[in-house]
Amino acid sequence: MTNVVWHNTTVQKKDREKSLKQKPFVLWFTGLSASGKSTIANSVEKKLFNHNFQTYLLDGDNIRLGLCKDLGFDEVSRVENIRRIGEVSKLFTDAGIIVLSAFISPFRSDRTLVRNLFQKKDFIEVFIDTKLETCEKRDPKGMYKKARDGEIKNFTGISSPYESPINPEIHIVNDSISIDDASNQIINFLVKNKYINER
Amino acid sequence: MTNVVWHNTTVQKKDREKSLKQKPFVLWFTGLSASGKSTIANSVEKKLFNHNFQTYLLDGDNIRLGLCKDLGFDEVSRVENIRRIGEVSKLFTDAGIIVLSAFISPFRSDRTLVRNLFQKKDFIEVFIDTKLETCEKRDPKGMYKKARDGEIKNFTGISSPYESPINPEIHIVNDSISIDDASNQIINFLVKNKYINER
Repeated sequence: MTNVVWHNTTVQKKDREKSLKQKPFVLWFTGLSASGKSTIANSVEKKLFNHNFQTYLLDGDNIRLGLCKDLGFDEVSRVENIRRIGEVSKLFTDAGIIVLSAFISPFRSDRTLVRNLFQKKDFIEVFIDTKLETCEKRDPKGMYKKARDGEIKNFTGISSPYESPINPEIHIVNDSISIDDASNQIINFLVKNKYINER
Repeated sequence: MTNVVWHNTTVQKKDREKSLKQKPFVLWFTGLSASGKSTIANSVEKKLFNHNFQTYLLDGDNIRLGLCKDLGFDEVSRVENIRRIGEVSKLFTDAGIIVLSAFISPFRSDRTLVRNLFQKKDFIEVFIDTKLETCEKRDPKGMYKKARDGEIKNFTGISSPYESPINPEIHIVNDSISIDDASNQIINFLVKNKYINER
């Protein structure tokens, strides 16, 4: 490999797109805790991956214990949390990777800030619209109960507002459909709007 | 694409490695300002990319204006800067991507902290060892002059220490060799130690 002719240029986003045979974009999932964001994002990622798209999913599991482990849950920290996730999403798309990001991201202003990091078409807001009652009934980690009991402060939907997207690219009403149906709605949007080609 | 059978599992690192046909790792370039870190890292990246490896280069250009734009240059900020870059490098390797990171990263303790985020073999410290006089003579952005004049505080090598790696995986003495020779030393290390296969 030492005989490669070296060109004094850097590897560009367009080179990576060509090599990976895909155009990167961000699917930004927003919605209440337990609305199904991560579950649906995982399902979408799996389908994309099975068709040889290169993807990466950012969620609480890989962000809160690493990059953002210095941040709490007060408002300033939550704003900074979303800002960093937006910047990391941008690095991944610059690397040619399709990003799925699954965080409550309750504030419109924060989501707008992230949206503005990207070319218009490259940021796709996916509103996972699940009724608060449904989320609270699921309550997989007992968080809603703790919030109702006052043990957790600033909990979105209970003691802190959730600002619904006004005009999201994708709107999934997720009270009674299957995970498979929900993720198919997203895949269909991507195919129809030529984000991904049929493979 | 809607007929894909959905499996209730997430896409794992090993799946990505198989799909990308590579094992991810981090090349962590450390050295003085103007030592040649970014230039050599770019050359290595170009060679890897030309052989169809999927890579991403983190450097001041894409980090300081984005993810770390809230940070200054005092010691606390510099520690946090390197911590975040380490965490982002980890996300990229989790996504299957080979990472090249080019930052002064002057403190041993910070580099050790980053090293410890990874499996032993996956972190490769690359010491770009260029004499201070050589760096200061190059001074492409006039930073050394400003540091000598006291206009910039805490400048590595002038008014802030650089702690050389004690046992780096790769040690490049970069006072008189070409960029091509320097990057070939790194490529040869990767081939010899089976980080990359001949393609």
